[in-house]
Amino acid sequence: MSWFYAFDLFGVAVFAISGALMAGRKSMDLFGVLVIALITSLGGGTLRDTILDNHPVVWIRDDLYILVAVLGALGTIAWVRLTRPIHETGLLVADAFGLAIFTVIGTQVALAQSVPVSAAVIMGVMTGVAGGVIRDIICNEIPLIFQREIYATACIVGSLVYIGLYRLDTPADLDVAIAVATVLVIRLAAIRWHLGLPRFHLLDRKPAEKD
Amino acid sequence: MSWFYAFDLFGVAVFAISGALMAGRKSMDLFGVLVIALITSLGGGTLRDTILDNHPVVWIRDDLYILVAVLGALGTIAWVRLTRPIHETGLLVADAFGLAIFTVIGTQVALAQSVPVSAAVIMGVMTGVAGGVIRDIICNEIPLIFQREIYATACIVGSLVYIGLYRLDTPADLDVAIAVATVLVIRLAAIRWHLGLPRFHLLDRKPAEKD
Amino acid sequence: MSWFYAFDLFGVAVFAISGALMAGRKSMDLFGVLVIALITSLGGGTLRDTILDNHPVVWIRDDLYILVAVLGALGTIAWVRLTRPIHETGLLVADAFGLAIFTVIGTQVALAQSVPVSAAVIMGVMTGVAGGVIRDIICNEIPLIFQREIYATACIVGSLVYIGLYRLDTPADLDVAIAVATVLVIRLAAIRWHLGLPRFHLLDRKPAEKD
Repeated sequence: MSWFYAFDLFGVAVFAISGALMAGRKSMDLFGVLVIALITSLGGGTLRDTILDNHPVVWIRDDLYILVAVLGALGTIAWVRLTRPIHETGLLVADAFGLAIFTVIGTQVALAQSVPVSAAVIMGVMTGVAGGVIRDIICNEIPLIFQREIYATACIVGSLVYIGLYRLDTPADLDVAIAVATVLVIRLAAIRWHLGLPRFHLLDRKPAEKD
Repeated sequence: MSWFYAFDLFGVAVFAISGALMAGRKSMDLFGVLVIALITSLGGGTLRDTILDNHPVVWIRDDLYILVAVLGALGTIAWVRLTRPIHETGLLVADAFGLAIFTVIGTQVALAQSVPVSAAVIMGVMTGVAGGVIRDIICNEIPLIFQREIYATACIVGSLVYIGLYRLDTPADLDVAIAVATVLVIRLAAIRWHLGLPRFHLLDRKPAEKD
Repeated sequence: MSWFYAFDLFGVAVFAISGALMAGRKSMDLFGVLVIALITSLGGGTLRDTILDNHPVVWIRDDLYILVAVLGALGTIAWVRLTRPIHETGLLVADAFGLAIFTVIGTQVALAQSVPVSAAVIMGVMTGVAGGVIRDIICNEIPLIFQREIYATACIVGSLVYIGLYRLDTPADLDVAIAVATVLVIRLAAIRWHLGLPRFHLLDRKPAEKD
């Protein structure tokens, strides 16, 4: 399924760019940029493969992934040096695309190991979002994923759609295409119209204050 | 050992509630609450099983764990919406119970793989506290475990008690019951009388200031 | 290769000391100091072995590692209590030595599993720096590694040197000695003359501001 492989590498490049940009916002040096780019783009898949005992993990099995992530990071630095503006909307759309691909791949890898549906969804979401979460943790921010428009919810829906189609007698390529489109549409709609889920507010009352 | 299995699920529910409350204090949305609840309740066991190469990890082997964690999170949101107050003391006691169970289970799983005593204790402590530590890291706080009354020390003692009893010719259920009670008693005493270990203070002198 | 094993344990002790000092700067209690020391000294190797599926991980295989880390932490507390000053320069030199050893060991372990060169370098760097990165994350700081003089760059170079020598017909001990010396020299020069890589500055413009 070579178009899918190309999409996967595109997702890696996009997440590497988003990692490099965050590293730049924190004024990291060249090495910091590379590390954050690698973690953002390959962290989710590494966590998934390690927890699923799916060895060797994706970037050890195929070193093109590392190459793409490194090129994505270096390309970002060069781009910012040469031409100031980052096309934020273009980046958000590309990020949504990467998210969609990673979610479906994560679900697919989990299903291939016959895990329960709930675990397959978790693996899909983890593959899509964990890299970004680790990036934000290292950069000492509350992960954006928990504070923005609908993000991982799109992954949950897309993962469930894929699992449903996977069990039907449809062509595998079609299953992937529909599930990827589902994540993409939800995420792009959330960006366009600033859709978000209701929040769970709780006043910060420490136990000590009551004692 | 079905009463122990029930206790384990109770521990999952309790940690899911504590995760959901922390997520509420950070005003996360529904998805954020679920993710933090899942990480808090299943993170320790996932880390333990992955490092011990004990696959499939607990929540992939048995999807009741995920269900209980999700219900614990949703129940917390519903409870807070319906009736304001959280019974902080009740939560602390329940948390102590979950901690006790998780510590003994972690030690047990490690001993079943014939690891050295030191590694079995680390696995017990890790199972008990890692979920909460990851929760605090994601929520961008210095993990409470390092700043409160005796917490993980109770795990260390309970884990050692379990290892001692495990080697004796006592019934397995009794070993578990005594070790769980040990963690519970130490932790509850620490909460009741605000017991803490001495701290290691060190002024923050950066090397640069000396150069 | 017993002198290498001794060096490895020395690296564990040094990183345990650096972890204990950071824990002291955060006024943690005895347990917190031990946990941070263990994570700093054994975290990198644990991550490497888990991702490489190299089980049992190093400190389960050989419990001397845990003993050395615990003694390093307790020794640090005793030392600070007895005699105030920490010899910062001595610590930096020891840290550079630990970094050099860990990097070469990580690369070696990865090469033994016939991974691609890029993955072997990542494993070397990860073994050298991940413990410190996790330490900084738990202590809620942007990892120092991303903000200081040349640090992980020394690991990358040392790892590549080792991989090059490994393929030549040189004695294994010599390969290790040269690669360790490479990391050490680069890192000590960076400390001595405050060498750093250029930074990638990017103004923090959130997408919301443009919409």
